[in-house]
Amino acid sequence: MVNENQHTCSASSSSKSDGGSSSGSEGSKDSSRCSTPVLDAERHERLREKMRRRQDSGDKWFSLEFFPPRTASGAVNLISRFDRMGAGGPLFVDVTWHPAGDPGSDKETSSMIIASTAVNYCGLETILHMTCCNQTKDEITGHLQKAKRLGLKNIMALRGDPAGEEWQEEVDGFNYAVDLVKHIRNEFDDYFDICVAGYPKGHPEAENYEADLRHLKEKVLAGADFIITQLFFRSETFLKFLKDCQAIGITCPIVPGIFPIQGYHSLRQLVRLSKLEVPQEIKDVIEPIKDNDAAIRNYGVELAVSMCRELLDSGMVHGLHFYTLNREVATTEVLKRLGMWTEDPRRPLPWAVSAHPKRRVEDVRPIFWASRPKSYIYRTQEWDDFPNGRWGNSSSPAFGELKDYYLFYLKSKSPREELLKMWGEELTSEESVFEVFTCYISGELNKNGHRVTCMPWNDDPLATETNLLKEQLEKVNRRGILTINSQPNINGKPSTDPIVGWGPSGGYVFQKAYLEFFTSSEIVTALLKVLKKYETRVNYHIVNVKGQNITNAPDLQPNAVTWGIFPGREIIQPTVVDPVSFLFWKDEAFALWIEQWAKLYEEESPSRMIIQYIHDNYYLVNLVDNDFPLENCLWQVVDDTFELLN
Amino acid sequence: MVNENQHTCSASSSSKSDGGSSSGSEGSKDSSRCSTPVLDAERHERLREKMRRRQDSGDKWFSLEFFPPRTASGAVNLISRFDRMGAGGPLFVDVTWHPAGDPGSDKETSSMIIASTAVNYCGLETILHMTCCNQTKDEITGHLQKAKRLGLKNIMALRGDPAGEEWQEEVDGFNYAVDLVKHIRNEFDDYFDICVAGYPKGHPEAENYEADLRHLKEKVLAGADFIITQLFFRSETFLKFLKDCQAIGITCPIVPGIFPIQGYHSLRQLVRLSKLEVPQEIKDVIEPIKDNDAAIRNYGVELAVSMCRELLDSGMVHGLHFYTLNREVATTEVLKRLGMWTEDPRRPLPWAVSAHPKRRVEDVRPIFWASRPKSYIYRTQEWDDFPNGRWGNSSSPAFGELKDYYLFYLKSKSPREELLKMWGEELTSEESVFEVFTCYISGELNKNGHRVTCMPWNDDPLATETNLLKEQLEKVNRRGILTINSQPNINGKPSTDPIVGWGPSGGYVFQKAYLEFFTSSEIVTALLKVLKKYETRVNYHIVNVKGQNITNAPDLQPNAVTWGIFPGREIIQPTVVDPVSFLFWKDEAFALWIEQWAKLYEEESPSRMIIQYIHDNYYLVNLVDNDFPLENCLWQVVDDTFELLN
Repeated sequence: MVNENQHTCSASSSSKSDGGSSSGSEGSKDSSRCSTPVLDAERHERLREKMRRRQDSGDKWFSLEFFPPRTASGAVNLISRFDRMGAGGPLFVDVTWHPAGDPGSDKETSSMIIASTAVNYCGLETILHMTCCNQTKDEITGHLQKAKRLGLKNIMALRGDPAGEEWQEEVDGFNYAVDLVKHIRNEFDDYFDICVAGYPKGHPEAENYEADLRHLKEKVLAGADFIITQLFFRSETFLKFLKDCQAIGITCPIVPGIFPIQGYHSLRQLVRLSKLEVPQEIKDVIEPIKDNDAAIRNYGVELAVSMCRELLDSGMVHGLHFYTLNREVATTEVLKRLGMWTEDPRRPLPWAVSAHPKRRVEDVRPIFWASRPKSYIYRTQEWDDFPNGRWGNSSSPAFGELKDYYLFYLKSKSPREELLKMWGEELTSEESVFEVFTCYISGELNKNGHRVTCMPWNDDPLATETNLLKEQLEKVNRRGILTINSQPNINGKPSTDPIVGWGPSGGYVFQKAYLEFFTSSEIVTALLKVLKKYETRVNYHIVNVKGQNITNAPDLQPNAVTWGIFPGREIIQPTVVDPVSFLFWKDEAFALWIEQWAKLYEEESPSRMIIQYIHDNYYLVNLVDNDFPLENCLWQVVDDTFELLN
Repeated sequence: MVNENQHTCSASSSSKSDGGSSSGSEGSKDSSRCSTPVLDAERHERLREKMRRRQDSGDKWFSLEFFPPRTASGAVNLISRFDRMGAGGPLFVDVTWHPAGDPGSDKETSSMIIASTAVNYCGLETILHMTCCNQTKDEITGHLQKAKRLGLKNIMALRGDPAGEEWQEEVDGFNYAVDLVKHIRNEFDDYFDICVAGYPKGHPEAENYEADLRHLKEKVLAGADFIITQLFFRSETFLKFLKDCQAIGITCPIVPGIFPIQGYHSLRQLVRLSKLEVPQEIKDVIEPIKDNDAAIRNYGVELAVSMCRELLDSGMVHGLHFYTLNREVATTEVLKRLGMWTEDPRRPLPWAVSAHPKRRVEDVRPIFWASRPKSYIYRTQEWDDFPNGRWGNSSSPAFGELKDYYLFYLKSKSPREELLKMWGEELTSEESVFEVFTCYISGELNKNGHRVTCMPWNDDPLATETNLLKEQLEKVNRRGILTINSQPNINGKPSTDPIVGWGPSGGYVFQKAYLEFFTSSEIVTALLKVLKKYETRVNYHIVNVKGQNITNAPDLQPNAVTWGIFPGREIIQPTVVDPVSFLFWKDEAFALWIEQWAKLYEEESPSRMIIQYIHDNYYLVNLVDNDFPLENCLWQVVDDTFELLN
């Protein structure tokens, strides 16, 4: 974490030079240079800077609150939800802190691990809640250190609920959220952005509303950067609170907490906990329909939309914070109705970036993990330097072991029975494996009438981009070229292209055609003969599970296969075919045959032996067509190979 | 110099991986990665490796020997000759050591400085001769340390001529070349490649031919890497010598020294010094034509060509070493007749690379010094790290001062009188300055009937590439947009294109259109209005001599304006428009008005005051059109500007 800011190039520190001071060799020594091409300024900003930027530009934003799940499979579901809801473009998510649930532990369901997953694997700016009562200073410091180590940069500092019925001051511990704010600033200086809670109706335990406002101001003076409010039912409540805060000199951002009513019981429970009163007009609507969840949710959405509109129309509100209760439908609906759900947010790079501060300079990755970005992040989590601008410069070749990862992140979202339906209850030959690959590509039902929506190497249905290659892919899979990764060639499409575009507008993106597949040694032998005709045009790496490796890559150099040219910037080359990391990917790709597929069947069963045979005898092949301005020749290479075999 | 090898990625150390050993996190720790895209393997090899590679590939090579000049203007001429003869593609040049001429000093005419110039500024692989007799070990070590510091990597280890008439052994010093070879290996380990001299007829002072061969073998055993022979007049002489060497176990390369006879007197002098006998058949031809230099040279070329053909046809000779006597015509003619002069050698990068070992990773430079590469090399000579792959990552912004440079390298090749004829004996207005720029571009004679073949910012006539823009450039210069640097946009031309191509074959090169000029503040005001229409498409930097700087470059990031995509490699982006170095270039560009042009005229003269006025009041502007696939819009920008002014 030391020196992590050395790569930062914030907009403020790189203001335009307007004098002679940075000219000549004398002045130059001070000039701080940006060591990474800044494609997306926000990626390099802290949360409070992002808020400020949005406020200045007038772009309204939203954020989403989640609580940690109770079970491991709940965690897997929540992570998928992060990915889906992350696609709508939240400014941040936050994860609540449940003292009873061992929130700082390494359990996959703890607040700490869930928040870390959101940052590292889902690329979401994340706030971790932390309560301070009933904990020692050392415990709190330990949690904060761990949060920092995991890449968390924002803390919501809360008091938490007292242990007993009645509140009792602790002499040596923390009694109020303000103590926690001070502690964070004392121990961690300006490292964390700190959020505190505001109570539009006053905290239920405060002497009165005015006293509560004063407490809030104390928290801000102690170092809080912004405020998120408790839920409320009327926009006037918030707007009055906002003005009252400003009146006593609170100038930081104050974000309204929005609670779309999603059901009768969840509302009652929340109201009980927060000691809020539901206005009569709402009760009047809800009581008669209390057993009709859909009706209540529709009403809740209506209510939230109209309240949010009032808030936004006031001109005093720049962002909205949603209490999602870990549910998607209502919040998404409200955001869509408000026009704040950005269906296709601009991709800063072709792959989803991680939000860990040490990864913010990362702008190149090997293509192999394209369908398994979480696995790549996991296996490179110990790296100190991330490739920045070019591969090989700062990349450590020490990829992490696979085994822990299987336990959690890598687990298929589908249960065994579903996988068997998709990939075959019983395999009879290698051809029945070809059939599975073919059905996955074509989207057609398999023999048993099931659709193949995922594969061991692809947890999701075929990417839109890959769809461009569908017809050819289907043909070759049917004949035993079992494709697991591919991209078409692109010769300068606008960076705003809805399918293949990425990066800032005004640029052009390029790709070399890529094809990666498993295939038999018989086909490899023919392929190698064919590839002689394509020498220099086509680069290849062919490897089996034992690591026998055949390649024509010059000097083990990486081959850039995706790059972009942008106004006023250096070239960005975010995806490479890298010979060294391919050998690490090879281990993972071959292991997936066994771990995800073979193990569905009984030991010694014919099905399992077929997969084992493929694992032991097939080769993993990747091909790059370097001549990106011409028509992709890789299909011709494959056709020639089949022809040679006939 | 420490760790200078860390960036090296020699062909041998990066051999293809062919087993499981580099797979898995365990094996990976050993895997050495190449930190720079290797476009040109030879650039990363030592001289002995280059020789080996050529021998293996069967590509015949040549090398050129020069002696240090006696005067400073002789040095300027010799450096131009290095550039011209370097264009023919020598494997190396060597510079002789003249004990009487203070060869290790910092004088611009010393062997040391001339050899260093060849390496650093002309990008030539260079051998520095060094003699050892009459010098102390400390003196020798000092010379070697200095040579190493200056980037020299190869030494020709010689005894040198005795001080007196008769040879006397020195007890504490060096008596033979073999002592020097041993000393270099003892003190500098394997840092230098060492060459020694061979005498096809035996050394004149050796007891006999056989004893001399044994001495030669001792030199090789002591650590010499290859042998260059004394000149000879018949191919049989060399081939016999070669076989005799091999017979006694000398296996290193032995390169024949070729002396094209260029004149009667030079031949006599050389023969006297080397104590060689000129064969009678040659004397018979030469004596009758001894006063006809051209006839003797023609004969010398014939003789050399036929002898070289015999050597090459023998199959035992892979390279030829030429004693040029610092003359161009004869040697160039011989090489062209042999088909060994490679008129347009493949450019590894768009700009000429330096041969200093610490610069071998350098593959990106600012565009500003495109016409003044020696100045750029000079001003960055103290840098420890060179940009490798991307700008800003390792570039030190500390540019060297200009003043020393003026004294030597920066001096115009043309004398004052010629410059006055080209740039005007008397300037009457700013328009007469416009006229000079226009004539330089158009190639037409100026009012006084002289051609303008150089400018303060361009020591050479217009580049071929710039010729593509000639018509438009002429038009805008006539109206006071005084262009000093430009390039057209290129959207993916083959890397083998004779005009704009560079890098290995099979690739594609790209450029963004670039235009750099001086112009008045009136034009700048109009230009800035026009540029508003081109925001994001056109990036600009506009600066005056005082450093007032107007730019729309995002976050002071560099803009890549030349890049190439090659088979199996990362993207190479060798030229950038860098906002920070532009301010250093600005100082140099403005200074040239005064140093090279204004100072041609008397102080207080109207001509000088006009140049001074331009220097004080004009702006230096650069423009980049980011939309490289479209037609260059910069001419439209300029046209719009003139229209606005009308």
